[in-house]
Amino acid sequence: MRLYNVHTLLEAQQVFKENFSFEIETIHINDAYHRVIAEDIVADIDVPSFRRSTVDGYAVVASDTNGATDTMPMLLDDLGEVMMGEAASLAIKPGELIYVPTGGMVPDGADAMVMIEYTERFSEDNIAILKQSLPLQHIVGIGADVKKHEQVLAKHQKLEARHLGVLAAVGVFRIKVYKKLKAVIISTGDELITTQQELSLGEVFDINTHTLKNRLSVFDIEVIESHVLKDNRHLIKPTIQEAVEKSDITLISGGSSVGEKDYTADIIDELSTENGVLIHGLAIKPGKPTIVGKVQNKLVLGLPGHPVSALIVMDQMIRMYLTSMHTYNVHQVKGYLTHNVHAAPGKETFVMVQLDGDQIIPVQGKSGMITMMSNADGYIRIGEDHEGLEKGDLTTVYLLD
Amino acid sequence: MRLYNVHTLLEAQQVFKENFSFEIETIHINDAYHRVIAEDIVADIDVPSFRRSTVDGYAVVASDTNGATDTMPMLLDDLGEVMMGEAASLAIKPGELIYVPTGGMVPDGADAMVMIEYTERFSEDNIAILKQSLPLQHIVGIGADVKKHEQVLAKHQKLEARHLGVLAAVGVFRIKVYKKLKAVIISTGDELITTQQELSLGEVFDINTHTLKNRLSVFDIEVIESHVLKDNRHLIKPTIQEAVEKSDITLISGGSSVGEKDYTADIIDELSTENGVLIHGLAIKPGKPTIVGKVQNKLVLGLPGHPVSALIVMDQMIRMYLTSMHTYNVHQVKGYLTHNVHAAPGKETFVMVQLDGDQIIPVQGKSGMITMMSNADGYIRIGEDHEGLEKGDLTTVYLLD
Repeated sequence: MRLYNVHTLLEAQQVFKENFSFEIETIHINDAYHRVIAEDIVADIDVPSFRRSTVDGYAVVASDTNGATDTMPMLLDDLGEVMMGEAASLAIKPGELIYVPTGGMVPDGADAMVMIEYTERFSEDNIAILKQSLPLQHIVGIGADVKKHEQVLAKHQKLEARHLGVLAAVGVFRIKVYKKLKAVIISTGDELITTQQELSLGEVFDINTHTLKNRLSVFDIEVIESHVLKDNRHLIKPTIQEAVEKSDITLISGGSSVGEKDYTADIIDELSTENGVLIHGLAIKPGKPTIVGKVQNKLVLGLPGHPVSALIVMDQMIRMYLTSMHTYNVHQVKGYLTHNVHAAPGKETFVMVQLDGDQIIPVQGKSGMITMMSNADGYIRIGEDHEGLEKGDLTTVYLLD
Repeated sequence: MRLYNVHTLLEAQQVFKENFSFEIETIHINDAYHRVIAEDIVADIDVPSFRRSTVDGYAVVASDTNGATDTMPMLLDDLGEVMMGEAASLAIKPGELIYVPTGGMVPDGADAMVMIEYTERFSEDNIAILKQSLPLQHIVGIGADVKKHEQVLAKHQKLEARHLGVLAAVGVFRIKVYKKLKAVIISTGDELITTQQELSLGEVFDINTHTLKNRLSVFDIEVIESHVLKDNRHLIKPTIQEAVEKSDITLISGGSSVGEKDYTADIIDELSTENGVLIHGLAIKPGKPTIVGKVQNKLVLGLPGHPVSALIVMDQMIRMYLTSMHTYNVHQVKGYLTHNVHAAPGKETFVMVQLDGDQIIPVQGKSGMITMMSNADGYIRIGEDHEGLEKGDLTTVYLLD
């Protein structure tokens, strides 16, 4: 029997850091949603790059409008119009004005915009100003939003819609990002059935390829294949070997405990030239039999067979793996426990919970029960040096959505 | 000049409900990640469908082990092994035991499992039991997880990884879901530039196709095309018409205000046989000039041109649209404001914020500033009957991640 060599999650993160690296590629921002940038992004241009009007109206010399009211309008000479998207070719002088649409360029000489609502056409050549305007009113200055050479995004930012908008705004269309990771999932067990049919006694439907595959998409990891295999090392070994060749992460659920037919660790060792198994066993509950292996510099992860355990352990391990190289930003949703929660002494303990506003409600049930999964929004993590958490404690929820 | 016909967001939701419907289709769970189910899901089977062992060990009659210890072991007759994934063909009688692996079927006659760690092989035919076991110990009963005819998921559930695992567990592989919605994005403005080049004075890079397209993926809406067009109704009208024919949602940013060149509302009316424009103007800030239209029973949404306004308004309108027909589950993250926030009287006001643990920090800046987008994790919504919120108030954050 193989002895567990128990590690903490923090140690696991260190093992990831020492053993794995992430490649970088340059891509267009059109393809960059949810990718992680591998460089600081600095603006090449001022935004806006010209003085921009924030209203539809007339560019004026503000002092020309002093004292203007409905009953005492000021008449100014109409020089025409600045076209949207074009440079203002004319400059204005005192006594003159020019029409500028929202977003248009304010011409030289003008220092304020008067909204069209506060103007009236007086004659073909003259516009009446009905309200006094202040210097700089309704004008966004050059670089008011982003200054040239200013950093707009920092390395390791995961790109959401809003960040891609910022990149477009400063005209940065090609960026360096970490390569998208590919994964293969292997679910093992003689009892597993994958298609719609009558179950015979002793058989169960495979769950893990479904939960693991879809959960990985949250981390922007592409699952290129999934396999459900009988618990036979002559089937499993070549499948792992092929998976390692074509992907970055191989996940194996089942077979990481110490039962008679559990040989995942042996296969990892056989497939690697040096020590393949990096971690065998973690001080976490659930998830003790977790295996972290390295074959051809690729990650091979052995997960428990129980669906809830497999889901939580993979979620934590993938977070550790990603944060070992770059910051993976997942919002730390916090809330208050509605009940006391007990933890396993000397282990980090994960407990499934529901989230209702800022209330965290522990979900009852054993980790093998799949119905816990439909009822839980996520899970909380209780440190190994805690005996549990108390009702009312503020804690973090790792969302499973 | 067209007069705004101002509505609240709640009225907008009602307008969506009365005017639009969602189609349903049947798909395999392999393709169902993040889809919304259109039926309650009831289990056809018990889970587990047989008495399952939770340990590697021996199935026994519990009373046979009474008083067993390391020094006073009980000897029982070894009947052999239940194979994983197979029915236990033998029943056991008092005085007998049979080996069952974790997840295997416990045979008739047995009422407890003894972990292998508490046993020792005594002879070819006998196993020594070193510890007393209790009735039902380490056995999951039939239907303990899910009972036949039990509802496992309710209609309108958005399917996360964990829900797909539950569907697999009960052997439901084909499900009714709402059809995936398709969208076309049209960003209009004479000033918009879309490719990496030197900007001339008066020009800006288009931002909205990037923010809107990527934000829609959060709602599982597929953007099939995006267009950046000059502000010319002879270009815009046929593009909207084509978009309506090939998609469910057409989004137009820019052109929904009341400037000279803003004719989105007119085009919507022209393209529809009956009243095309349902809403023109909403009592929200930012977002007043929002247009909701209906052409060939498809949604046409006119959004402000300012990137931050366009993003927030689209986010709110799409939530309203989706929740008008089914529950769109987005976690309501809550926190406490670090500063007072003022609101526009008589309008619902949206304010961009950062989230740090349970602290909500309002982001400074005008709604036209794109840098607000890189700094904000989301936004808060202040009701029209509030003059603002105070430091320390508990409020909801709509995350933009």
